[in-house]
Amino acid sequence: MDPTVKKQALRTFTYGLYAVSCVEGATVNIFTANWLSQVSFEPPLVAVSVENAAKSLPMILQSRVFTINTLRAGQRGLAAQLGKSANQRPDKLAEIAYSIGANGCPILQDALAWVACEVRGTLEAGDSTLILAEVVDAGMLAEGQSLTMAEAGFRHAG
Amino acid sequence: MDPTVKKQALRTFTYGLYAVSCVEGATVNIFTANWLSQVSFEPPLVAVSVENAAKSLPMILQSRVFTINTLRAGQRGLAAQLGKSANQRPDKLAEIAYSIGANGCPILQDALAWVACEVRGTLEAGDSTLILAEVVDAGMLAEGQSLTMAEAGFRHAG
Repeated sequence: MDPTVKKQALRTFTYGLYAVSCVEGATVNIFTANWLSQVSFEPPLVAVSVENAAKSLPMILQSRVFTINTLRAGQRGLAAQLGKSANQRPDKLAEIAYSIGANGCPILQDALAWVACEVRGTLEAGDSTLILAEVVDAGMLAEGQSLTMAEAGFRHAG
Repeated sequence: MDPTVKKQALRTFTYGLYAVSCVEGATVNIFTANWLSQVSFEPPLVAVSVENAAKSLPMILQSRVFTINTLRAGQRGLAAQLGKSANQRPDKLAEIAYSIGANGCPILQDALAWVACEVRGTLEAGDSTLILAEVVDAGMLAEGQSLTMAEAGFRHAG
Protein backbone atom coordinates (compact mmCIF):
# COMPACT_ATOMS: atom_id res chain seq x y z
CA MET A 1 0.00 0.00 0.00
CA ASP A 2 1.34 3.42 -1.00
CA PRO A 3 1.10 5.55 2.18
CA THR A 4 0.56 8.74 0.17
CA VAL A 5 -2.37 7.22 -1.74
CA LYS A 6 -3.76 5.76 1.51
CA LYS A 7 -3.67 9.25 3.05
CA GLN A 8 -5.29 10.86 -0.01
CA ALA A 9 -8.04 8.24 -0.14
CA LEU A 10 -8.84 8.51 3.59
CA ARG A 11 -8.98 12.29 3.24
CA THR A 12 -11.88 11.97 0.81
CA PHE A 13 -14.03 10.97 3.81
CA THR A 14 -16.42 13.67 5.00
CA TYR A 15 -16.62 14.87 8.62
CA GLY A 16 -18.35 17.36 10.81
CA LEU A 17 -16.72 19.09 13.76
CA TYR A 18 -17.95 18.54 17.28
CA ALA A 19 -17.03 19.63 20.79
CA VAL A 20 -17.21 16.59 23.05
CA SER A 21 -17.47 17.43 26.74
CA CYS A 22 -16.85 15.27 29.77
CA VAL A 23 -16.60 15.34 33.53
CA GLU A 24 -14.85 13.49 36.31
CA GLY A 25 -15.32 14.68 39.86
CA ALA A 26 -14.79 18.45 39.91
CA THR A 27 -13.00 18.51 36.54
CA VAL A 28 -14.62 19.12 33.16
CA ASN A 29 -13.04 19.09 29.73
CA ILE A 30 -14.14 19.83 26.19
CA PHE A 31 -12.28 18.61 23.13
CA THR A 32 -12.73 18.84 19.37
CA ALA A 33 -13.65 15.60 17.60
CA ASN A 34 -14.46 14.64 14.04
CA TRP A 35 -14.26 10.82 14.07
CA LEU A 36 -17.83 10.47 15.24
CA SER A 37 -21.03 8.96 13.82
CA GLN A 38 -24.47 7.76 14.73
CA VAL A 39 -24.40 3.94 14.49
CA SER A 40 -27.94 2.79 15.40
CA PHE A 41 -31.48 4.17 15.29
CA GLU A 42 -33.03 1.87 17.90
CA PRO A 43 -31.75 2.39 20.46
CA PRO A 44 -30.10 5.65 19.34
CA LEU A 45 -26.38 4.93 19.54
CA VAL A 46 -23.32 6.91 18.52
CA ALA A 47 -19.65 5.98 18.27
CA VAL A 48 -16.73 8.33 18.81
CA SER A 49 -13.03 7.62 18.49
CA VAL A 50 -10.88 9.21 21.21
CA GLU A 51 -7.07 9.21 21.14
CA ASN A 52 -5.57 7.00 23.83
CA ALA A 53 -3.29 9.89 24.85
CA ALA A 54 -6.19 12.33 25.39
CA LYS A 55 -6.87 13.65 28.90
CA SER A 56 -10.59 13.07 28.31
CA LEU A 57 -10.44 9.33 27.60
CA PRO A 58 -9.99 8.16 31.21
CA MET A 59 -12.53 10.78 32.31
CA ILE A 60 -15.17 9.31 29.97
CA LEU A 61 -14.31 5.71 30.84
CA GLN A 62 -14.59 6.52 34.54
CA SER A 63 -17.76 8.67 34.50
CA ARG A 64 -19.42 6.70 31.64
CA VAL A 65 -21.00 9.91 30.30
CA PHE A 66 -20.18 12.61 27.76
CA THR A 67 -22.01 15.20 25.66
CA ILE A 68 -21.55 15.89 21.97
CA ASN A 69 -21.98 19.55 21.02
CA THR A 70 -22.44 20.12 17.26
CA LEU A 71 -20.43 23.18 16.25
CA ARG A 72 -21.98 25.78 13.95
CA ALA A 73 -20.76 27.02 10.59
CA GLY A 74 -18.33 29.86 11.28
CA GLN A 75 -16.95 28.37 14.51
CA ARG A 76 -13.56 27.33 13.13
CA GLY A 77 -11.81 29.37 15.82
CA LEU A 78 -13.75 27.70 18.61
CA ALA A 79 -12.93 24.27 17.13
CA ALA A 80 -9.24 25.19 17.00
CA GLN A 81 -9.26 26.45 20.59
CA LEU A 82 -10.98 23.33 21.92
CA GLY A 83 -8.66 21.16 19.83
CA LYS A 84 -5.66 22.19 21.92
CA SER A 85 -4.30 19.57 24.30
CA ALA A 86 -5.82 19.90 27.78
CA ASN A 87 -2.63 18.41 29.19
CA GLN A 88 -0.49 21.11 27.56
CA ARG A 89 -3.06 23.92 27.92
CA PRO A 90 -4.87 23.35 31.23
CA ASP A 91 -6.49 26.82 30.90
CA LYS A 92 -7.91 26.22 27.44
CA LEU A 93 -11.55 26.54 28.61
CA ALA A 94 -10.96 29.94 30.31
CA GLU A 95 -12.73 32.02 27.62
CA ILE A 96 -15.33 29.41 26.60
CA ALA A 97 -19.00 30.03 27.47
CA TYR A 98 -20.81 26.92 28.64
CA SER A 99 -23.37 25.68 31.13
CA ILE A 100 -23.33 22.34 32.96
CA GLY A 101 -25.87 19.77 31.78
CA ALA A 102 -27.80 17.29 33.93
CA ASN A 103 -25.05 14.69 33.42
CA GLY A 104 -22.37 17.12 34.64
CA CYS A 105 -20.86 17.65 31.19
CA PRO A 106 -20.52 21.13 29.63
CA ILE A 107 -23.02 22.33 27.03
CA LEU A 108 -21.50 25.02 24.82
CA GLN A 109 -23.60 28.20 24.83
CA ASP A 110 -22.99 28.78 21.12
CA ALA A 111 -23.37 25.22 19.82
CA LEU A 112 -26.00 24.26 17.26
CA ALA A 113 -27.24 21.25 19.23
CA TRP A 114 -26.13 18.77 21.89
CA VAL A 115 -26.70 15.11 22.67
CA ALA A 116 -25.98 13.61 26.09
CA CYS A 117 -24.57 10.08 25.93
CA GLU A 118 -24.00 7.13 28.24
CA VAL A 119 -21.20 4.69 27.46
CA ARG A 120 -22.41 1.22 26.44
CA GLY A 121 -19.17 -0.35 25.23
CA THR A 122 -15.65 0.21 23.98
CA LEU A 123 -13.39 -1.30 21.36
CA GLU A 124 -9.61 -0.88 21.23
CA ALA A 125 -8.79 0.79 17.94
CA GLY A 126 -5.05 1.23 17.40
CA ASP A 127 -3.90 4.62 18.70
CA SER A 128 -7.47 5.38 19.81
CA THR A 129 -10.42 3.88 21.65
CA LEU A 130 -13.79 3.59 19.95
CA ILE A 131 -16.56 4.43 22.40
CA LEU A 132 -20.11 3.20 21.77
CA ALA A 133 -22.73 5.22 23.64
CA GLU A 134 -26.49 5.66 23.86
CA VAL A 135 -28.13 9.04 23.34
CA VAL A 136 -30.19 9.67 26.49
CA ASP A 137 -30.99 13.39 26.13
CA ALA A 138 -30.72 16.07 23.47
CA GLY A 139 -31.30 19.75 22.84
CA MET A 140 -31.43 22.21 19.97
CA LEU A 141 -29.78 25.57 20.69
CA ALA A 142 -29.91 27.37 17.35
CA GLU A 143 -30.84 27.05 13.70
CA GLY A 144 -28.31 26.96 10.91
CA GLN A 145 -25.62 24.84 9.35
CA SER A 146 -23.12 22.56 11.07
CA LEU A 147 -19.41 23.27 10.91
CA THR A 148 -17.63 20.82 8.64
CA MET A 149 -14.00 19.79 8.35
CA ALA A 150 -14.16 21.02 4.76
CA GLU A 151 -15.23 24.52 5.86
CA ALA A 152 -12.63 24.63 8.64
CA GLY A 153 -9.88 23.38 6.35
CA PHE A 154 -8.78 20.90 9.00
CA ARG A 155 -7.25 17.57 7.97
CA HIS A 156 -7.56 15.16 10.87
CA ALA A 157 -7.73 12.08 8.65
CA GLY A 158 -5.40 9.96 6.56
CA MET B 1 -35.95 12.86 26.11
CA ASP B 2 -38.16 14.44 23.44
CA PRO B 3 -37.86 12.12 20.40
CA THR B 4 -38.37 15.02 17.97
CA VAL B 5 -35.53 17.02 19.53
CA LYS B 6 -33.35 13.89 19.63
CA LYS B 7 -33.96 13.41 15.89
CA GLN B 8 -33.25 17.07 15.10
CA ALA B 9 -30.05 17.07 17.16
CA LEU B 10 -28.73 13.84 15.59
CA ARG B 11 -29.49 15.26 12.14
CA THR B 12 -27.02 18.08 12.76
CA PHE B 13 -24.25 15.47 12.39
CA THR B 14 -22.36 15.63 9.10
CA TYR B 15 -21.86 12.64 6.80
CA GLY B 16 -20.38 11.68 3.48
CA LEU B 17 -21.85 9.05 1.20
CA TYR B 18 -19.98 5.88 0.39
CA ALA B 19 -20.54 2.71 -1.59
CA VAL B 20 -19.33 -0.22 0.49
CA SER B 21 -18.68 -3.38 -1.51
CA CYS B 22 -18.31 -6.95 -0.35
CA VAL B 23 -17.96 -10.51 -1.58
CA GLU B 24 -18.79 -14.01 -0.46
CA GLY B 25 -18.03 -16.89 -2.78
CA ALA B 26 -19.36 -16.00 -6.25
CA THR B 27 -21.64 -13.22 -4.94
CA VAL B 28 -20.76 -9.54 -4.69
CA ASN B 29 -22.82 -6.69 -3.32
CA ILE B 30 -22.49 -2.93 -3.06
CA PHE B 31 -24.50 -0.81 -0.63
CA THR B 32 -24.73 2.86 0.28
CA ALA B 33 -23.42 3.80 3.73
CA ASN B 34 -22.99 7.02 5.63
CA TRP B 35 -22.34 5.88 9.22
CA LEU B 36 -18.65 5.48 8.60
CA SER B 37 -15.47 7.09 9.94
CA GLN B 38 -11.75 6.66 10.23
CA VAL B 39 -11.00 5.80 13.89
CA SER B 40 -7.20 5.41 14.11
CA PHE B 41 -4.12 6.69 12.27
CA GLU B 42 -1.70 3.94 13.34
CA PRO B 43 -2.64 1.40 12.26
CA PRO B 44 -5.12 3.01 9.83
CA LEU B 45 -8.51 1.81 11.03
CA VAL B 46 -12.06 2.63 9.99
CA ALA B 47 -15.41 1.80 11.54
CA VAL B 48 -18.65 1.31 9.63
CA SER B 49 -22.11 0.59 10.99
CA VAL B 50 -24.09 -1.98 8.98
CA GLU B 51 -27.77 -2.74 9.62
CA ASN B 52 -28.29 -6.21 11.06
CA ALA B 53 -30.96 -6.86 8.40
CA ALA B 54 -28.63 -6.04 5.49
CA LYS B 55 -27.70 -8.79 3.04
CA SER B 56 -24.09 -7.60 3.17
CA LEU B 57 -23.52 -8.00 6.90
CA PRO B 58 -23.10 -11.81 6.93
CA MET B 59 -21.06 -11.54 3.72
CA ILE B 60 -18.58 -9.18 5.41
CA LEU B 61 -18.48 -11.19 8.63
CA GLN B 62 -17.80 -14.37 6.64
CA SER B 63 -15.23 -13.04 4.14
CA ARG B 64 -13.65 -10.55 6.63
CA VAL B 65 -13.05 -8.05 3.81
CA PHE B 66 -14.83 -5.09 2.24
CA THR B 67 -13.99 -2.01 0.19
CA ILE B 68 -15.18 1.54 0.79
CA ASN B 69 -15.72 3.56 -2.40
CA THR B 70 -16.02 7.31 -1.80
CA LEU B 71 -18.78 8.67 -4.02
CA ARG B 72 -18.23 11.89 -5.96
CA ALA B 73 -20.21 15.11 -5.85
CA GLY B 74 -23.08 14.73 -8.33
CA GLN B 75 -23.55 10.99 -7.76
CA ARG B 76 -26.81 11.24 -5.80
CA GLY B 77 -28.51 8.92 -8.29
CA LEU B 78 -25.82 6.27 -7.92
CA ALA B 79 -26.09 6.51 -4.12
CA ALA B 80 -29.87 6.07 -4.34
CA GLN B 81 -29.56 3.07 -6.67
CA LEU B 82 -26.99 1.34 -4.45
CA GLY B 83 -29.09 2.18 -1.39
CA LYS B 84 -31.86 -0.15 -2.54
CA SER B 85 -32.21 -3.40 -0.62
CA ALA B 86 -30.26 -6.22 -2.28
CA ASN B 87 -32.76 -8.67 -0.85
CA GLN B 88 -35.69 -6.87 -2.52
CA ARG B 89 -33.77 -5.85 -5.68
CA PRO B 90 -31.37 -8.72 -6.47
CA ASP B 91 -30.62 -7.08 -9.86
CA LYS B 92 -29.68 -3.69 -8.42
CA LEU B 93 -26.06 -3.89 -9.67
CA ALA B 94 -27.09 -4.66 -13.29
CA GLU B 95 -26.30 -1.18 -14.66
CA ILE B 96 -23.39 -0.39 -12.31
CA ALA B 97 -19.85 -0.21 -13.76
CA TYR B 98 -17.24 -1.79 -11.53
CA SER B 99 -14.10 -3.89 -11.56
CA ILE B 100 -13.11 -6.53 -9.01
CA GLY B 101 -10.29 -5.60 -6.64
CA ALA B 102 -7.55 -7.87 -5.34
CA ASN B 103 -9.71 -8.72 -2.29
CA GLY B 104 -12.62 -9.78 -4.51
CA CYS B 105 -14.76 -6.73 -3.67
CA PRO B 106 -16.09 -4.38 -6.38
CA ILE B 107 -14.36 -1.07 -7.06
CA LEU B 108 -16.77 1.43 -8.64
CA GLN B 109 -15.46 2.75 -11.94
CA ASP B 110 -16.76 6.25 -11.21
CA ALA B 111 -15.83 6.56 -7.53
CA LEU B 112 -13.50 9.26 -6.24
CA ALA B 113 -11.32 6.85 -4.24
CA TRP B 114 -11.42 3.43 -2.61
CA VAL B 115 -9.94 1.79 0.47
CA ALA B 116 -9.75 -1.98 0.90
CA CYS B 117 -10.36 -3.13 4.47
CA GLU B 118 -9.88 -6.24 6.59
CA VAL B 119 -12.16 -6.81 9.57
CA ARG B 120 -10.39 -6.58 12.93
CA GLY B 121 -13.36 -6.58 15.30
CA THR B 122 -17.07 -6.03 15.73
CA LEU B 123 -19.34 -4.51 18.36
CA GLU B 124 -23.09 -5.11 18.61
CA ALA B 125 -24.78 -1.74 18.23
CA GLY B 126 -28.56 -1.95 18.59
CA ASP B 127 -30.20 -2.45 15.20
CA SER B 128 -26.76 -2.50 13.55
CA THR B 129 -23.29 -3.99 13.91
CA LEU B 130 -20.25 -1.74 14.17
CA ILE B 131 -17.37 -3.19 12.16
CA LEU B 132 -13.80 -2.16 12.94
CA ALA B 133 -11.42 -2.75 10.04
CA GLU B 134 -7.86 -2.01 8.95
CA VAL B 135 -7.12 -0.22 5.71
CA VAL B 136 -4.77 -2.53 3.78
CA ASP B 137 -4.89 -0.99 0.28
CA ALA B 138 -6.16 2.19 -1.32
CA GLY B 139 -6.51 3.93 -4.66
CA MET B 140 -7.38 7.34 -6.06
CA LEU B 141 -9.61 7.25 -9.16
CA ALA B 142 -10.42 10.90 -9.80
CA GLU B 143 -10.04 14.43 -8.51
CA GLY B 144 -12.87 16.46 -7.11
CA GLN B 145 -15.26 16.73 -4.21
CA SER B 146 -16.89 13.94 -2.21
CA LEU B 147 -20.65 13.46 -2.24
CA THR B 148 -22.18 14.51 1.07
CA MET B 149 -25.51 13.69 2.69
CA ALA B 150 -26.19 17.43 2.66
CA GLU B 151 -25.76 17.63 -1.13
CA ALA B 152 -27.83 14.48 -1.70
CA GLY B 153 -30.57 15.67 0.63
CA PHE B 154 -30.67 12.26 2.28
CA ARG B 155 -31.56 11.94 5.97
CA HIS B 156 -30.25 8.63 7.25
CA ALA B 157 -29.76 9.88 10.82
CA GLY B 158 -31.88 10.71 13.82
